[in-house]
Amino acid sequence: MSRVGKVRETGGVSQLHDPALHSFASDNYSGAHAEVIQALADANGGHVGSYGADPYTARFSELVVQHFGEGSTVHPVLTGTGANVVALQALVPRWGAVICAATAHIYTDEGGAPERLGGIKLLTVPTTDGKLTPDLIDRQAYGWGDQQRPQPLAVSITQTTEMGTAYSVSEIRAITQHAHSLGMKVHLDGARIANAAATTGATLQQFTRDAGVDAVSFGGTKNGLIFGESVVVLTDDELPGVTYIRKMDAQLASKMRFVSAQFVAVLEGDLWLRSAQHSNAMAQRLRDALVELPGVEVTQPVEANAVFAILPRHVIEPVRAEHRFYDWNRSTGEVRLMCSFDTTEAHVDALAESIRREIESAP
Amino acid sequence: MSRVGKVRETGGVSQLHDPALHSFASDNYSGAHAEVIQALADANGGHVGSYGADPYTARFSELVVQHFGEGSTVHPVLTGTGANVVALQALVPRWGAVICAATAHIYTDEGGAPERLGGIKLLTVPTTDGKLTPDLIDRQAYGWGDQQRPQPLAVSITQTTEMGTAYSVSEIRAITQHAHSLGMKVHLDGARIANAAATTGATLQQFTRDAGVDAVSFGGTKNGLIFGESVVVLTDDELPGVTYIRKMDAQLASKMRFVSAQFVAVLEGDLWLRSAQHSNAMAQRLRDALVELPGVEVTQPVEANAVFAILPRHVIEPVRAEHRFYDWNRSTGEVRLMCSFDTTEAHVDALAESIRREIESAP
Amino acid sequence: MSRVGKVRETGGVSQLHDPALHSFASDNYSGAHAEVIQALADANGGHVGSYGADPYTARFSELVVQHFGEGSTVHPVLTGTGANVVALQALVPRWGAVICAATAHIYTDEGGAPERLGGIKLLTVPTTDGKLTPDLIDRQAYGWGDQQRPQPLAVSITQTTEMGTAYSVSEIRAITQHAHSLGMKVHLDGARIANAAATTGATLQQFTRDAGVDAVSFGGTKNGLIFGESVVVLTDDELPGVTYIRKMDAQLASKMRFVSAQFVAVLEGDLWLRSAQHSNAMAQRLRDALVELPGVEVTQPVEANAVFAILPRHVIEPVRAEHRFYDWNRSTGEVRLMCSFDTTEAHVDALAESIRREIESAP
Amino acid sequence: MSRVGKVRETGGVSQLHDPALHSFASDNYSGAHAEVIQALADANGGHVGSYGADPYTARFSELVVQHFGEGSTVHPVLTGTGANVVALQALVPRWGAVICAATAHIYTDEGGAPERLGGIKLLTVPTTDGKLTPDLIDRQAYGWGDQQRPQPLAVSITQTTEMGTAYSVSEIRAITQHAHSLGMKVHLDGARIANAAATTGATLQQFTRDAGVDAVSFGGTKNGLIFGESVVVLTDDELPGVTYIRKMDAQLASKMRFVSAQFVAVLEGDLWLRSAQHSNAMAQRLRDALVELPGVEVTQPVEANAVFAILPRHVIEPVRAEHRFYDWNRSTGEVRLMCSFDTTEAHVDALAESIRREIESAP
Repeated sequence: MSRVGKVRETGGVSQLHDPALHSFASDNYSGAHAEVIQALADANGGHVGSYGADPYTARFSELVVQHFGEGSTVHPVLTGTGANVVALQALVPRWGAVICAATAHIYTDEGGAPERLGGIKLLTVPTTDGKLTPDLIDRQAYGWGDQQRPQPLAVSITQTTEMGTAYSVSEIRAITQHAHSLGMKVHLDGARIANAAATTGATLQQFTRDAGVDAVSFGGTKNGLIFGESVVVLTDDELPGVTYIRKMDAQLASKMRFVSAQFVAVLEGDLWLRSAQHSNAMAQRLRDALVELPGVEVTQPVEANAVFAILPRHVIEPVRAEHRFYDWNRSTGEVRLMCSFDTTEAHVDALAESIRREIESAP
Repeated sequence: MSRVGKVRETGGVSQLHDPALHSFASDNYSGAHAEVIQALADANGGHVGSYGADPYTARFSELVVQHFGEGSTVHPVLTGTGANVVALQALVPRWGAVICAATAHIYTDEGGAPERLGGIKLLTVPTTDGKLTPDLIDRQAYGWGDQQRPQPLAVSITQTTEMGTAYSVSEIRAITQHAHSLGMKVHLDGARIANAAATTGATLQQFTRDAGVDAVSFGGTKNGLIFGESVVVLTDDELPGVTYIRKMDAQLASKMRFVSAQFVAVLEGDLWLRSAQHSNAMAQRLRDALVELPGVEVTQPVEANAVFAILPRHVIEPVRAEHRFYDWNRSTGEVRLMCSFDTTEAHVDALAESIRREIESAP
Repeated sequence: MSRVGKVRETGGVSQLHDPALHSFASDNYSGAHAEVIQALADANGGHVGSYGADPYTARFSELVVQHFGEGSTVHPVLTGTGANVVALQALVPRWGAVICAATAHIYTDEGGAPERLGGIKLLTVPTTDGKLTPDLIDRQAYGWGDQQRPQPLAVSITQTTEMGTAYSVSEIRAITQHAHSLGMKVHLDGARIANAAATTGATLQQFTRDAGVDAVSFGGTKNGLIFGESVVVLTDDELPGVTYIRKMDAQLASKMRFVSAQFVAVLEGDLWLRSAQHSNAMAQRLRDALVELPGVEVTQPVEANAVFAILPRHVIEPVRAEHRFYDWNRSTGEVRLMCSFDTTEAHVDALAESIRREIESAP
Repeated sequence: MSRVGKVRETGGVSQLHDPALHSFASDNYSGAHAEVIQALADANGGHVGSYGADPYTARFSELVVQHFGEGSTVHPVLTGTGANVVALQALVPRWGAVICAATAHIYTDEGGAPERLGGIKLLTVPTTDGKLTPDLIDRQAYGWGDQQRPQPLAVSITQTTEMGTAYSVSEIRAITQHAHSLGMKVHLDGARIANAAATTGATLQQFTRDAGVDAVSFGGTKNGLIFGESVVVLTDDELPGVTYIRKMDAQLASKMRFVSAQFVAVLEGDLWLRSAQHSNAMAQRLRDALVELPGVEVTQPVEANAVFAILPRHVIEPVRAEHRFYDWNRSTGEVRLMCSFDTTEAHVDALAESIRREIESAP
């Protein structure tokens, strides 16, 4: 990883890492906002009810209503995978299948948790940019009443997508109208939902509840929490099982105040949004630098905090040694460069400069 | 809850609760050690590898070897239920069943997670004090090779038990020898493992690895972490699946440094042990006060941080209004009084005094 | 096994067993009614729709309406375990738990299928005779709304029970009224439902639909089919998932005509009832003989086709060598003696005589 | 369906269908061989051990050794879906994923049973003809050790495939060598395994055990049994759990003699092979007729008992009214025409003639 600036002189006695290191590997390589750590300290001390019966969870619930609209309910959980599985199990009965993009995190990166833990059959559709459309959904949306076909009863979209792209409000509305007309619910995997708000300019409510989404995995970890996610239920239908499902999926935090207090810290003001605006802007800055470079091809629209780009072969390893990042497609030389809430202009410029230098030093 | 002492003058701006409140409801009503919050702050900042590739998890691994013995490996997870399910799934194949006490947390309080999420059949045995013995195990340990009987391939014990009792090292060794002789592994649910070390005077290693235990759910939350548990594998046999199982059970923390750093904070010195010694001592003090009171019957040996006692009927509600606690058996008037790392002598004395007063004020 | 009568001279060329052998081991040691084999032959030939779109399944459906009442629907499956799991999954949502007797087949003898395949948490109650009552149900019927407790949403009773006892119509009605008043459905495991009709004198409809039962595992195998069971749904509420659940539980027969035709063969007339009346009568005859014998204790009321009895120790193995049967409780010397549709008076008398002889030959 | 020949004058009293009807819809629209029904009659009568402890299952085991080679073991089950799930669960541990063609029956047509009942993550690869190759396998065979990726631990191939094509012995050997070199087991879904023997001229042993296959779903239903499938284990490694898995998947027949006796009936002589040779020949005859017709395109090599063909639009419904069959791809007009053991030359010629006539009668 790159070292921009110097190591903090006075790390705590138990500090084992170099807080000056930065990378472009993932938005979960970064830590948490200072405000989030402070919120944990403030929420500490004394006794409060466990399993959600505490004032921080109550406040978080109020903030969710404020941000997602009247009637929204929130169920804090521990991991993103947990949020997705709980939400999907709450949306569909035992025999329900869920349509998603072939690149969806729930299909590719969750160790099979939706299938194994949730008993959810996933019906995948290839996409070019990670985004479903009514037409793409129709490639799997059939076979209701056919007792041999897993019944498609929900659609899951990711906002922003695993490809760094974002749905517009009207694109989401088109999907929910189509899905609902076919008797399917709509789940939105919002691990990077703040980046979506930042890039679309829409409120959380506008592209979720108002756009017809039934349940959201509301991500916190990728936006500056230490960890903590939540399931936000928007549908007017009751989802009576969500609280029991959360427990049977091992996603019920006993000292829930410490999950909720983090969300409260970012949602009370606009910290949640500013962080996402910043990481999006850093990705934009990086994109702008890369498109100028010979032999570099930016492969996806940069609408959130990720830049996907094909780099010249000889460039990849020398640059990676300084600025860690992951390959996306080894056969084409495509890499994924993620910006985080704590990525600075200096980090971006150093990376772009490193790539430029290596391109020029080519044999 | 009771207010002993006064509210901290300078709660953080986001403090929504009264940190002077205390209760005897559960050791998860309490918050975290100040050192744990500081450790989170120290672990913050900069970028480190996610999903366990960070220096805090490395340090935690070293400390686990130190405490549990050479060859021990640790797998941090998020919840106690998660730790139990991951451990049990790693210990037994798909067709394995697990013998446990009828009062075991895995059977009664985890929303069916072991069965539903883990596919684990639980074979229960009634006990008087929450403790299994070789003889009690034999009531379910039969039927290997019978294709209709779930195959008993592991025993799960809780240390300290859900009844506030503790196994001695030799009692655990008798169980593991018996279980191993029958081809069964042994899992120890150590949600309150520190209390066990405190009460037995044994090291963690002595009553786990040295006593023949194969895997431990090593609890942190009930001993002063904000949350965070872990699976410690002790068996010399490989448990190759534990890392994949952790993910498919939605128990893999992306920013794992923040789980591990908390454990490091309590394990580097003896904070983990001092906390447990203290909460045990508080329970002992409470027991000593209660046995003096007319009409009060302490129903279980007090070997950890819980006191089970039958209170006169008319006493329960007035006392509960001041000092929150849970009923254990409504038909007999038995209640559970839990002490925590932050329970003080003043808290205990106030509770005992409240009970005494209500007894005397009886009609 | 005992040989009563001589071997049939002209077994088919592919006959590999001695059709004169009889045993008291289980009602699935016997074969099928000759009428059932003939029905398979009649249903053979030509092409009919698969997966239930055939005239035999249509006729079976009509017969189920006739026997269980207007509005009943039938879903043929392959095994008794399959029928139970499909029915329970259809009755309760993902988070539902099922209350049953500790001796229930679903809990003790199905390899954990309800838990593992169905994700069903079973909450067991000890009974003396295999029968639940409202009071016994109440020992597990609590905790609705408690997010940590598996939610009791159904009761499963076995009729006739695993202990050879039978519920009266009014006993069942008391259970269903109690269960329904608590928001729980009622499932009846009818692996031996014909024996229940025979012993109570009630129609199938009287002790199922009319008594408030919501779904039945309607057994065929133990009553003279080669194999084939079915799920009968009685509730007026829709159970929309049963057909999809059947497939995902691997219980959908492609050539379903051959399951349905067997049921049609026994249900068109009274063969189903006559068989059960006969096997019940044989058990009664056996009981009457045993109670006369010194040192023999019949341990359960004989209300169906099973006799549970404690035999003197030295008697068991010599008698078992002639007339195979299973131990029920090795520590007390209790054995289970099952009569089948093809058990004759001669078989029973031979067994009783054998026991008498061994008792007398005692040291 | 078409009526070729006249209705049998003397159907049994319980015959509810017209045995002269034939269709091209599926090889499970047909019934069973007369020898199979006779075998059921011969296996009937008297008492034999249940759950596999009977002479028919013993004989079936011998025949499986004869056909698949020394060391092979057989585990009879009830359904094809059941066979596949039991086999896959026995081959891979909890965390194992299985690579298969996107057209594989396990992925498309089993109601999600592998995922839901088996907890098996399926990793699919698109193919043109339903056949995997080492190269195609490599598109999913990666990520071992990556804790977020379901671990590819087995490959499942279908022989003959869902597209009516067949693997040669050397194609299978290439797959098993590749898979084994990567630490993966190989499962062969042999719902139509007899058709594969018929078309390749190889013995069952040659393209399974000798070719390196580890476990086979050995199909009976599609080759003239009433129903009954089995899992054949070929691997030298032990698969100790298969018998427990069979029960927990509700696939253990109590009166197993009636499953095994059917297999014995077809395997003792060459009935199993003759049936498949015949249905293959009928498909060949149909193909030969269709390729002569203008506007008809046969879309897959006809190597087994299925013909896939695109018919002119206006032809489909009139022909279907006489000779039932299923659409394969509604957008292209592709249909699937299945031949069965009881398909005659007259049936084939009538179908071909019907298509020809409708083509000519076109507007």
